[in-house]
Amino acid sequence: MSSDAPPVVRTGQSPARPTDAATVTSHPLGLDRARITGGFWADRQRAGAEAVRVGHEQLERAGNLHNLRLAGGRTGGGDGTGEAVGPVFADSDVYKWLEAVAWEYAREPAEDLLERQREVTALVAAAQQPDGYLNSVVQLRSGEAGRYADLPWSHEHYCAGHLIQAAVAQVRCTGDRALLEVAVRLADHLVETFGEDRRHDVDGHPVIEMALVELYRETGTPAYLELARYFVDARGHGLMASYGKEPTYFSDRVPVREATTVEGHAVRAVYLTAGATDLATETGDTALLATLDAQFSTMWATKTYLTGGLGSRWDWEAFGEPYELPPDRAYAETCAAIGGIQWAWRMLLATGEARYGDALERMLFNGFLAGVSLHGTEYFYVNPLQLRGSSQPDENRSPAHGRRGWFACACCPPNVMRTMSGLAGLLASTAPGVLSVHQYATATLDGDELGLELTTDYPWSGQVRLEVTRSSGRSTLRLRVPGWAAGATVTVDGAEAGPATPGGYVELERDWQPGQVVLLDLPLTVRTVTAHPRVDAVRGCVALERGPLVYAFEHVDQQPGVELDDITLVPGPDARVQHEPGLLEGVTTLTLRGRPARAPEEYRPWPWPVDGGAPVPGDEVDLVAIPYYAWANREIDAMRVWVPLGSPGGTPS
Amino acid sequence: MSSDAPPVVRTGQSPARPTDAATVTSHPLGLDRARITGGFWADRQRAGAEAVRVGHEQLERAGNLHNLRLAGGRTGGGDGTGEAVGPVFADSDVYKWLEAVAWEYAREPAEDLLERQREVTALVAAAQQPDGYLNSVVQLRSGEAGRYADLPWSHEHYCAGHLIQAAVAQVRCTGDRALLEVAVRLADHLVETFGEDRRHDVDGHPVIEMALVELYRETGTPAYLELARYFVDARGHGLMASYGKEPTYFSDRVPVREATTVEGHAVRAVYLTAGATDLATETGDTALLATLDAQFSTMWATKTYLTGGLGSRWDWEAFGEPYELPPDRAYAETCAAIGGIQWAWRMLLATGEARYGDALERMLFNGFLAGVSLHGTEYFYVNPLQLRGSSQPDENRSPAHGRRGWFACACCPPNVMRTMSGLAGLLASTAPGVLSVHQYATATLDGDELGLELTTDYPWSGQVRLEVTRSSGRSTLRLRVPGWAAGATVTVDGAEAGPATPGGYVELERDWQPGQVVLLDLPLTVRTVTAHPRVDAVRGCVALERGPLVYAFEHVDQQPGVELDDITLVPGPDARVQHEPGLLEGVTTLTLRGRPARAPEEYRPWPWPVDGGAPVPGDEVDLVAIPYYAWANREIDAMRVWVPLGSPGGTPS
Repeated sequence: MSSDAPPVVRTGQSPARPTDAATVTSHPLGLDRARITGGFWADRQRAGAEAVRVGHEQLERAGNLHNLRLAGGRTGGGDGTGEAVGPVFADSDVYKWLEAVAWEYAREPAEDLLERQREVTALVAAAQQPDGYLNSVVQLRSGEAGRYADLPWSHEHYCAGHLIQAAVAQVRCTGDRALLEVAVRLADHLVETFGEDRRHDVDGHPVIEMALVELYRETGTPAYLELARYFVDARGHGLMASYGKEPTYFSDRVPVREATTVEGHAVRAVYLTAGATDLATETGDTALLATLDAQFSTMWATKTYLTGGLGSRWDWEAFGEPYELPPDRAYAETCAAIGGIQWAWRMLLATGEARYGDALERMLFNGFLAGVSLHGTEYFYVNPLQLRGSSQPDENRSPAHGRRGWFACACCPPNVMRTMSGLAGLLASTAPGVLSVHQYATATLDGDELGLELTTDYPWSGQVRLEVTRSSGRSTLRLRVPGWAAGATVTVDGAEAGPATPGGYVELERDWQPGQVVLLDLPLTVRTVTAHPRVDAVRGCVALERGPLVYAFEHVDQQPGVELDDITLVPGPDARVQHEPGLLEGVTTLTLRGRPARAPEEYRPWPWPVDGGAPVPGDEVDLVAIPYYAWANREIDAMRVWVPLGSPGGTPS
Repeated sequence: MSSDAPPVVRTGQSPARPTDAATVTSHPLGLDRARITGGFWADRQRAGAEAVRVGHEQLERAGNLHNLRLAGGRTGGGDGTGEAVGPVFADSDVYKWLEAVAWEYAREPAEDLLERQREVTALVAAAQQPDGYLNSVVQLRSGEAGRYADLPWSHEHYCAGHLIQAAVAQVRCTGDRALLEVAVRLADHLVETFGEDRRHDVDGHPVIEMALVELYRETGTPAYLELARYFVDARGHGLMASYGKEPTYFSDRVPVREATTVEGHAVRAVYLTAGATDLATETGDTALLATLDAQFSTMWATKTYLTGGLGSRWDWEAFGEPYELPPDRAYAETCAAIGGIQWAWRMLLATGEARYGDALERMLFNGFLAGVSLHGTEYFYVNPLQLRGSSQPDENRSPAHGRRGWFACACCPPNVMRTMSGLAGLLASTAPGVLSVHQYATATLDGDELGLELTTDYPWSGQVRLEVTRSSGRSTLRLRVPGWAAGATVTVDGAEAGPATPGGYVELERDWQPGQVVLLDLPLTVRTVTAHPRVDAVRGCVALERGPLVYAFEHVDQQPGVELDDITLVPGPDARVQHEPGLLEGVTTLTLRGRPARAPEEYRPWPWPVDGGAPVPGDEVDLVAIPYYAWANREIDAMRVWVPLGSPGGTPS
């Protein structure tokens, strides 16, 4: 197979890079043409840059690199044997980290990154088998006989997928083709091994689908796209059942083309749909795209937390029933938010619809960002929307594994790294004569016809200044107006240029001149939202949002004696909005009035707790809310996003 | 060690039979002296009698008996080797079934039961090793080397415990000592093997504690009580951690004597506390009893469902945080309700407090009874308080494994059998000069000084007629007045004999004469209850109770087009109460007014579902509720115990 890139293949440092032949409405501006230069995300990315460095130490400590050294004969007896450590998918953490290194290098080149990349790439290359097979854990634990022996659990394609994604990122960002050669050998091995007319089987954990389409985009080799098509279509026909597995968990109960919603393991589900979206755009399969669009809408409406978190069940890390969205037991794995972002980004490129930009923004600022500490080096695996003050310390006080530097199952940390470093790739996209800005940050955008410099205090301020730095004549600038931005306005050189209708794009076609200034003003009204009435778990509760941020009440910010487990919000004047530069690296807080819940007349289905459980109505107090993403950076104690709405009288509604 | 019963040992066919030396306030009336002769529970027990017969076929089909035959050399090569089938605790299902056979024989003697008992007991005896060790699965799978090699998971003491309980029941009910001899050999082997000065270790799953105390009660051998004491005290000091296990799940995080609540795996937790209660009463350990009393109260107030269901988490089948009681994801394993009943019964004997009789009744009529079908031969493993109509059929429509004839993990079915057959043992207890009636059924009670014939339509009617059939002179009759029975009255031969204060016992000291009639009238007012405000999952909701029964709305009983997922109850006139002899083998239904929930003004944190998710306010409709225990006997569809309380205007509170 040829690995020369045919003319249809684009260049550019994008995490997802459709070919010119793809049926997308626009193509992403890569990291080479979209750069975050300051503000909110620049701070997060600085922390992320440090995290990438620490990540290498973590991979060393956890033994992931050791596995590769053993398998490659670089240590131990030198014969490629030895005791593998960690989970069967240990290699994937290395690959996700390598991908992060590539995006990080594109974001801010540094020699130490290239050195690390060369070192680790060499380990990976050495571990690869002559026929292209590569999975250090399987090689060490069960050798050739173990290959693909337990696909539902072995994660062999999953690891291959992450390797391919890393290799593609490496070529795009550093030009180094060493890992790509490994990836191509592995992909060719997969092509020779799997398919309708070959071994008819799929991996238990999707990601290979996205990866193979990207490898096709990078190399132009049709066989990779075809194999991705095969893996997407082979699912949902009971292959997992042939291993005696319950298929739902593996997204194998219903074929992707027939599914009406997402179900089962949340990360698997959205990785699969994201890959299917890549497939649909590269094959011009509008029917498949329409199905995926419906699936996303249903997921968003019935199985998505306010934070954009996905997956409500701890057991099997799964999506629950429609509207089964308990805030306290939300699983909302950080990796699921990342998969959701990847899917939304692909749907946005395909459809150009603002709601995907809105969804991506909600997941980015909340469900995703809460998964990493402000220092950038500690992570949540699980992201609940409520933690009780009555939680039992040793058992449950820290949700899931808590915010930790690493996990035995370490999928989330390197996933956060690659997402954070590659973030600029999600800001904007281009089409002939059009530059679309989807996310707002202080940044420079180098579009086909238009260069822009963005300046903003977003998300603390809703004002975005876009100055034209380069223009090749007449073109259209499209700016997303978030669905929440009621009353948004846009001016060009001070002149009203609206309408700026929320939930869409304002389109400014001009004969742009350098120095022209566009001002987008998105009013950051504090929004009090309630859930669909079928979301039984938060009945009678409200949550607070401002701009793209979901807010949360954290125990440490409340007056002494205020128990978040018992409070209700008192409806009344708007929240007091205050930006506090010294708090949590600078956040805007909301202050509202609340009081302890009053006990209803009769609520004694069972005796009271020994300590007397009925809260007595208390006086009004101030309650302070912080952005959800910033919780658990000071202590782990009571936190809640949804709060019961009381009445001025204090009786709970 | 002697196995002669010293004088302190009582006789009588009781599931839990304290010695005369035990610090209990009363002793149970065994099945030989308490007989259910008609009414509600007689119907349930008839179904149970059939289920015990079917149980033998199930054990044959599932391979549990096959394991014992192999281990005993009764089949296969005859050398005690072969391929064991099923879970490592497979033997315990046989033992629980053998225990059920014993109680069933006491309830209604039948030759076929004795034959089955002799057959299966012979299999068990043959499988026992010369030194007394017995666990067919461990013997077959890993032989002598496998003994106690993985106590956290091997369930070896757990199986031993159930064997002992069966053996004790067999002797008490049939006089056959064959299984007791096996149990004694096994218990002696455990005594020789485990203890502070021997192997210092505990089983991952309690039950051996209860069993050893009962074996002591049966045989009078102090070593068994001492070993029970050891197993109770050895827990909570990190023995599980020495196996690398997280201790909470195994009730091993905190010593029983220091615990303030229950946590971890629900069944393990309450089996342990029930055993600790037996230990406390037989050793006169009032401090331990006080601790257990506080633990029960905290469990009841903060970790117990309205149905008496225990354990809110599917992951690890565990108790959740205090007040973490989601109705939809309630785990509430049937075995946990049974363990709760066993604990409450022991606490009732120890303390004589009516609240334990109330708790037992709530668990019995709701959390326990819902676990078995009206036919008696199909079971729920998990007992949620809500099932959505929007549940996805193939995935989640049937809660947990659904109501099935048997399970791969078949702990619940034989546990239901032994509880149902032994039920009469929970009705009443005696103390010198006192007969206490704790539960009401049509039955005969043969107390020390007093014989009674009870006639009642309980739980459909609250009127209980007690006629004296025998009296040896002056004695006190104590009748539990449930906490819910406001306005209860009691008469003797028509004369007011009150006060009958709810939540206590009415005490009637008389020179009783045969023919005298006591009438207890417990008003079955329909009660609308709400939960503690910290139970976030049911905020703004109410549930309905009548007498001991919790009610539920099931889809099949509603008018066409009524979606239980969307309804609210309309406050207004009392529910219409109607007894329907033809429905679900005769139930009293409640009819109330409700309407679809109205959508609040703003509840759009995310777009609507494609199919349009916002219910429009609808007209009032009748909503019909049935007793919770009877749900899922016609179809599996939407069901809910907790329903949002609307307002006359229809806006949801």
